[in-house]
Amino acid sequence: MSEPIYHVDGELVPASEATVSVDDRGFRYGDAAFETVRLYGGTIFEWDAHADRLAGTCELLSLDHGLPRGELRGRIEEAVAANGLADAYARLSITRGVQPGKLTPSPAVDPTVVVYVASLPRGGVDGEPVPDGHATLETVETRRVPDEAIPANAKTHNYLNGILARLELTEGDEALVRSLDGAVAEGTTSNVFVVDDGELVTPPVGDVALPGITRRVVIELAAEAGIPTAERRLEPADVRGADEVFLTNTTGEVWPVEAVDGHAFDAPGPITDRLATLFDERVERRCYR
Amino acid sequence: MSEPIYHVDGELVPASEATVSVDDRGFRYGDAAFETVRLYGGTIFEWDAHADRLAGTCELLSLDHGLPRGELRGRIEEAVAANGLADAYARLSITRGVQPGKLTPSPAVDPTVVVYVASLPRGGVDGEPVPDGHATLETVETRRVPDEAIPANAKTHNYLNGILARLELTEGDEALVRSLDGAVAEGTTSNVFVVDDGELVTPPVGDVALPGITRRVVIELAAEAGIPTAERRLEPADVRGADEVFLTNTTGEVWPVEAVDGHAFDAPGPITDRLATLFDERVERRCYR
Repeated sequence: MSEPIYHVDGELVPASEATVSVDDRGFRYGDAAFETVRLYGGTIFEWDAHADRLAGTCELLSLDHGLPRGELRGRIEEAVAANGLADAYARLSITRGVQPGKLTPSPAVDPTVVVYVASLPRGGVDGEPVPDGHATLETVETRRVPDEAIPANAKTHNYLNGILARLELTEGDEALVRSLDGAVAEGTTSNVFVVDDGELVTPPVGDVALPGITRRVVIELAAEAGIPTAERRLEPADVRGADEVFLTNTTGEVWPVEAVDGHAFDAPGPITDRLATLFDERVERRCYR
Repeated sequence: MSEPIYHVDGELVPASEATVSVDDRGFRYGDAAFETVRLYGGTIFEWDAHADRLAGTCELLSLDHGLPRGELRGRIEEAVAANGLADAYARLSITRGVQPGKLTPSPAVDPTVVVYVASLPRGGVDGEPVPDGHATLETVETRRVPDEAIPANAKTHNYLNGILARLELTEGDEALVRSLDGAVAEGTTSNVFVVDDGELVTPPVGDVALPGITRRVVIELAAEAGIPTAERRLEPADVRGADEVFLTNTTGEVWPVEAVDGHAFDAPGPITDRLATLFDERVERRCYR
């Protein structure tokens, strides 16, 4: 693919020329909200859920950017179209803008809005999975930032916690991150599911982990398919000892796990495979028809 | 003052033209280390301590930028001189550079190095305090990010925790931030000291708070002056009930507090005033002579 085109503050620019001021609070402090969305056949999947979560993040940060959600959606679609793409990933970042020198934010916000775009293969029923292959999970020592310090519902540019977790990996693709109390919270960019004795289990979200949108879709699909599902505390040993393990996120969809801390799994397991198929069918129905 | 000149990746540029790529990890994730230094008469105060702490942050982040500390110092001095300044503040930021698309950092680092500069009044014995006036402190609900999630010794661009604390302030200048266990940890950009019955007390650092350089200098000055000093746990009530309270940081030096959660103090108290004078004398001796 040639150089991607990004959308920065209302302008389409080649990625290599897409910049922000060093005085932008997004750069100085990570003072910014973001969402990663997936487009299938030019349609943003679960746009309303992403727009709701973004609004929630901005409210938690008191970042009143003033942009209608239709405008945000339009910028994403415009950026994707400018790249000649229909199957793509887009990241929408909104910062508190340029406010030099003071940590306390000014109430008046002139936000910086950036849309990143990258090509992805077709999804849906005849699509290719992203990423390729199965995941390897590794429990790390870095613990998730607690809700009392930064709200777990906020999806922000403060991503060092996840980076520190990833840096611990010796061979895994994704870190299994625990809360301070030792319970499994999430991956660094994914939610974690296990299947044990026919039951689908995932840790609760809202105060210990980001409420993933793919996670919510998978729980809905499981309910429709009559798969018993529970949200409850999991220890790393529960994950290692499960029958099946998979991760969810916007780009990876339902991503089978083939190893956890060196314990191997037959991946994808039957329920993982069924949920992945149901997910693809929903994408096909919602976006490609 | 006319537009400041910054130093970005080896070039001197007007602040309004100082930019970084939107794919810079400093922007995408706050994946960056920084130090704020103060120059008095063109000399960086406590450079070795700042350079050591920066090296520590970069080690904690596995951010091997490869730049000798003399080079970093040179860029700061060059930037300050380019602004025609001798009394100034400078912020040195080092990011992991442009690495699009992946959360897991690449081991090869082509860092982005930014030096911000702003004018400050003369310090030392005949100097003016920065900031003007006395501080008002307010205990907030936002708790400090624990060491298990992001090392307390790391000074990074992930500053949302402090921003959320500042956003809670109703009238204060600085937030009194507690650890998860309720003990006083620090301000958002400062360390906290109290004086009670002639004893100087400050919370311990290293796992609950950033080890401030001005904090360390003040502890040294107190020892030289024979002021009994202890590092131990403080509750917000201990701060409200103390005889004197002050904050320390690089730009504010010794900053008297005149109110904590609405309780008024005579500021500066006698020991605060003595330490501020000793601090000014050290600055005078080290930098202006």
